[in-house]
Amino acid sequence: MSNDQHLTEHTTSREELLKGHFLHVVRETVRLPDGGAATREFVLHPGAVAVVPLLDDGRILLERQYRHATKQVHVEIPAGKLDAGETPLVCGQRELLEETGYVAREWAYAFTMYPTVAYSDEAIHIWFARGLEHKGARLDAGEFLEVFSATPQEFLGWCADGRIRDSKTLASALWIQNVLAGTWKLDWQAPPTQP
Amino acid sequence: MSNDQHLTEHTTSREELLKGHFLHVVRETVRLPDGGAATREFVLHPGAVAVVPLLDDGRILLERQYRHATKQVHVEIPAGKLDAGETPLVCGQRELLEETGYVAREWAYAFTMYPTVAYSDEAIHIWFARGLEHKGARLDAGEFLEVFSATPQEFLGWCADGRIRDSKTLASALWIQNVLAGTWKLDWQAPPTQP
Repeated sequence: MSNDQHLTEHTTSREELLKGHFLHVVRETVRLPDGGAATREFVLHPGAVAVVPLLDDGRILLERQYRHATKQVHVEIPAGKLDAGETPLVCGQRELLEETGYVAREWAYAFTMYPTVAYSDEAIHIWFARGLEHKGARLDAGEFLEVFSATPQEFLGWCADGRIRDSKTLASALWIQNVLAGTWKLDWQAPPTQP
Repeated sequence: MSNDQHLTEHTTSREELLKGHFLHVVRETVRLPDGGAATREFVLHPGAVAVVPLLDDGRILLERQYRHATKQVHVEIPAGKLDAGETPLVCGQRELLEETGYVAREWAYAFTMYPTVAYSDEAIHIWFARGLEHKGARLDAGEFLEVFSATPQEFLGWCADGRIRDSKTLASALWIQNVLAGTWKLDWQAPPTQP
């Protein structure tokens, strides 16, 4: 996968299309591999972190949250956007505490996923967390969600029967299945706990 | 999961934010579960279909494609947007042929995934295809991609080592692993072949 010049596009100009309260969209004109021109429109996003929180009894901590874009309640792992200058680990610690009220003693980076390669530059960094201790949630104003837990068997069953439909949660299920089976390894670390 | 009124938001107004060449973005004002108000911005998308094409020798058909939003080449399963009035199965047949040059004798619906619940209404319907026969690809103008194949072991290894980073492809890997292991079942059908 070394030389991708026959596939790669090069930006020749960029135009701002939208600076909303939340969404930032640009249009770039690109030079195609064959020398032609095309335009690409996409969302600029700071990136995000999602956390797979494993409770000491083997259950997985999950959230139920209404997502207005989809007009549905989704079962998801905890996640949130990176703040400016924040490392993914610190973001994961912050989001886990804010949304679920838990802190975790040990953390392990698993993988990075692009949810929407066609029209967003967002990357989601997925971390596993264990050694959980409950401290109390601190939801943002206007944020409504339910925290609950499920066994890995229940969780994987919901991926199979369509009850789980969120991409970061489904992709993390591949990791959960293989990590719990012992076939994929994580490199656990014990970082300083966030205040 | 029957009564979600304590989580659900209700639209009170909608505003067009962007009608680009490709992206359509709206802002909706919503009434929150506690009676407060908030705004939600998101992409309106027609939906998409992705296909897991299984070759007779057990290999998986894949694509390498540069995705300008991410400035990277991604390994992906074939996929494309639903045309107006098109069923997901017909869309999958069309995209598989256009992008890879293959037709498939048997098809099975696997799952539906929302890539970006936070800011897009896009749903991706994932189908498996087998009984593949090569006819010759018909790429759209300005579309550049490479078609290749991998064993399931190679493919899952690339999910584990970070070489595969596309959400629909990672989520499909969970299905590929469990379908090939025989633990998750698919309901195969033999639809009319597309012309």
